[in-house]
Amino acid sequence: MDCIFCKIANGEIPSATLYEDEDFRVMLDIGPASFGHALILPKKHYADIYELPDELASRVMVLAKKVAGALKQALKLEGLNLLQNNGSLAGQTVYHFHLHLIPRYQGDEVGLTWKPGELQDKDREVIIEKVTALL
Amino acid sequence: MDCIFCKIANGEIPSATLYEDEDFRVMLDIGPASFGHALILPKKHYADIYELPDELASRVMVLAKKVAGALKQALKLEGLNLLQNNGSLAGQTVYHFHLHLIPRYQGDEVGLTWKPGELQDKDREVIIEKVTALL
Repeated sequence: MDCIFCKIANGEIPSATLYEDEDFRVMLDIGPASFGHALILPKKHYADIYELPDELASRVMVLAKKVAGALKQALKLEGLNLLQNNGSLAGQTVYHFHLHLIPRYQGDEVGLTWKPGELQDKDREVIIEKVTALL
Repeated sequence: MDCIFCKIANGEIPSATLYEDEDFRVMLDIGPASFGHALILPKKHYADIYELPDELASRVMVLAKKVAGALKQALKLEGLNLLQNNGSLAGQTVYHFHLHLIPRYQGDEVGLTWKPGELQDKDREVIIEKVTALL
């Protein structure tokens, strides 16, 4: 399989690495949304959140917290988004699970917004019924 | 402390709950970005990712994976974003840690995009030096 994030995660392609352990690499995004934009990737290939094994899902947020704290302190951040995209409709461009850490700055051009809708009674009932049946 | 998410998480204020256990509540956002927009909140109060204890950080992504899978299957999703905001600059409006699960649909008006920049050599060096010193 020809996956660029596999090659980066495993060091076959060099990257601006902030942290590495047996299971993960944390590196700077080469097309950053903002100064300090970092990515956390597992070294093994999983396309998205659905495929990521629980053991790695468990570790990834603890690692994200650690990296978030380091970014905040090092870059004196007042804002930080964690974003993880699944599917091209959601903006996923590389089909190897990755978590974005996006520092935010006054007046930056990062658009992570939406117009809040209203939760309709009938939608609420349908969604609760369908989703809770699977949980 | 007067935190609306504490009251919701603990059931003092009713919510459209999808899942609940000792530590977390998963509910539908009342101002949804899209059909099925859900939030995961810890029952105890932590302002953001920096405050969330490792034990809960560990559990939150496993729970997110589970809820993501249920949303995908129940609503036949082709796209899903996980988003977690820290600080008002990052769009955080309630200062009680929460993870958004935002289903995506063709032609929706959810804006989670940015114009990719370029990682400059000097920025890379500065960021790596400052951040790795803290990791």
